[in-house]
Amino acid sequence: MSFSSALRSIQQQQNSLLCVGLDTDLQKIPRFLRDRSDPVAAFNRRIIDATKDLVCAYKLNLAFYETLGNQAWDTLRQTLTHIPAEIVSIGDAKRGDIGNTAEMYARTLFSTYSFSACTVNPYMGEDSVRPFANDPDRGVFVLAVTSNAGARDFQYLRVRGKPLYEHVIAKVKKWNSHDNFGLVVGATHPRELKRIRALAPDLPFLIPGIGAQGGDLTSAVRYGCDTHGEMAVINASRSILYASSGEDFADAARTAALNLKEEINTIRSKFF
Amino acid sequence: MSFSSALRSIQQQQNSLLCVGLDTDLQKIPRFLRDRSDPVAAFNRRIIDATKDLVCAYKLNLAFYETLGNQAWDTLRQTLTHIPAEIVSIGDAKRGDIGNTAEMYARTLFSTYSFSACTVNPYMGEDSVRPFANDPDRGVFVLAVTSNAGARDFQYLRVRGKPLYEHVIAKVKKWNSHDNFGLVVGATHPRELKRIRALAPDLPFLIPGIGAQGGDLTSAVRYGCDTHGEMAVINASRSILYASSGEDFADAARTAALNLKEEINTIRSKFF
Repeated sequence: MSFSSALRSIQQQQNSLLCVGLDTDLQKIPRFLRDRSDPVAAFNRRIIDATKDLVCAYKLNLAFYETLGNQAWDTLRQTLTHIPAEIVSIGDAKRGDIGNTAEMYARTLFSTYSFSACTVNPYMGEDSVRPFANDPDRGVFVLAVTSNAGARDFQYLRVRGKPLYEHVIAKVKKWNSHDNFGLVVGATHPRELKRIRALAPDLPFLIPGIGAQGGDLTSAVRYGCDTHGEMAVINASRSILYASSGEDFADAARTAALNLKEEINTIRSKFF
Repeated sequence: MSFSSALRSIQQQQNSLLCVGLDTDLQKIPRFLRDRSDPVAAFNRRIIDATKDLVCAYKLNLAFYETLGNQAWDTLRQTLTHIPAEIVSIGDAKRGDIGNTAEMYARTLFSTYSFSACTVNPYMGEDSVRPFANDPDRGVFVLAVTSNAGARDFQYLRVRGKPLYEHVIAKVKKWNSHDNFGLVVGATHPRELKRIRALAPDLPFLIPGIGAQGGDLTSAVRYGCDTHGEMAVINASRSILYASSGEDFADAARTAALNLKEEINTIRSKFF
């Protein structure tokens, strides 16, 4: 089953488009966990246990794990082992390098760590992206329009009458012979999201930027989904992980995730 | 002293533009080292000892270290500790992410690992690049024209009559208030190198792509240098690291590095 089919299947099975971003910051987890031997893994396990019936995916931004130094590898592995196999796990690494080096990055993400998908940066072109897409089971979300302000510096520059990101999307559609490519489109750009969904009606979209970054949830769902009301992966991180800083953090995370999942489904039922 | 001044100073002191790429592949180092507890660190230490009077910089591509799993952190630290403080150490990570995440990546590269410079990908724009440039002592090489074939997919797209990479360069010049930005320009694009040096007469250029990738050394030196015949950082990796696969690997690496340094200086003496 291709990555794209697997994603659709888990979204249907869980009736959820929600992705919890496990961007766990040691400074922000409850105090009582901090004297554990591996506080981040302990925190993540509790969050996963509390939310795994509510999500289609977890996304781990590698920057947060790298800061753990020699603990990083083990914390990542322990966290990934705890994610049920059918749920998508996205290594948010935004990698990109020349071919043989990209192959190494891909091997680390998919073999050493067993992520089922990752994010990549398109600036270096096809041979920097392809090595991540060789296995049809593994998904590759290419940055199209990112959620930050700097997105406007280059992604919107017009090339032959179209913004650069549309050229990226055209290439991604061409590269997608294994049905395992997707796009990253920030929720902070609802107009672009609508336009990009029209350009790429079937691709999975990873949509960050709701919550702390101010993206609008209704637009993210309405314009991010395909015609079946699926294939949008809507990421929330801080609003779920840090819903409470007390001993009840996992229950509070569950409540926040459940509310968001249901809010998304209410919007879906309106438009699809 | 800004990064740019420090680079010029070490290039003059060593009379060298050579950067050795410590892209050490466990599968390619001499057999007799492989039963060491940390063969990559042992190999790197010998290479550094054999070449440290011949180079202005070492560049470590993080992809190669990540593959070492839970050993990666320690191997990187041991390697960096062994590099003399005045020699530039470049963390070739090609990172780029939203502001708070980019800050984490920067902290890891510059504080956890003490690299003196790094490479970043410009696609996500200013707020994804700035966090790497806050400390004037630390250098930030932004990808402009990369050495791979895929460079042509997006970097050459024309925006208002100019290729995208020229827009990247214009922004980098604007961001360079601390005198610590540079550009990555592949040696496989000599014409572009000449044009980019004209556009950015003072910026440090990190120039990969000679050797295995087929870039031309004469053009790299002639067009990559500033008017003083400096500020080009010319990287070679495989041709030096694997000059011999026997017990004499370090001597062979020294000979290869010395020859390349002198070849570069012969070209410099012709054109500057």
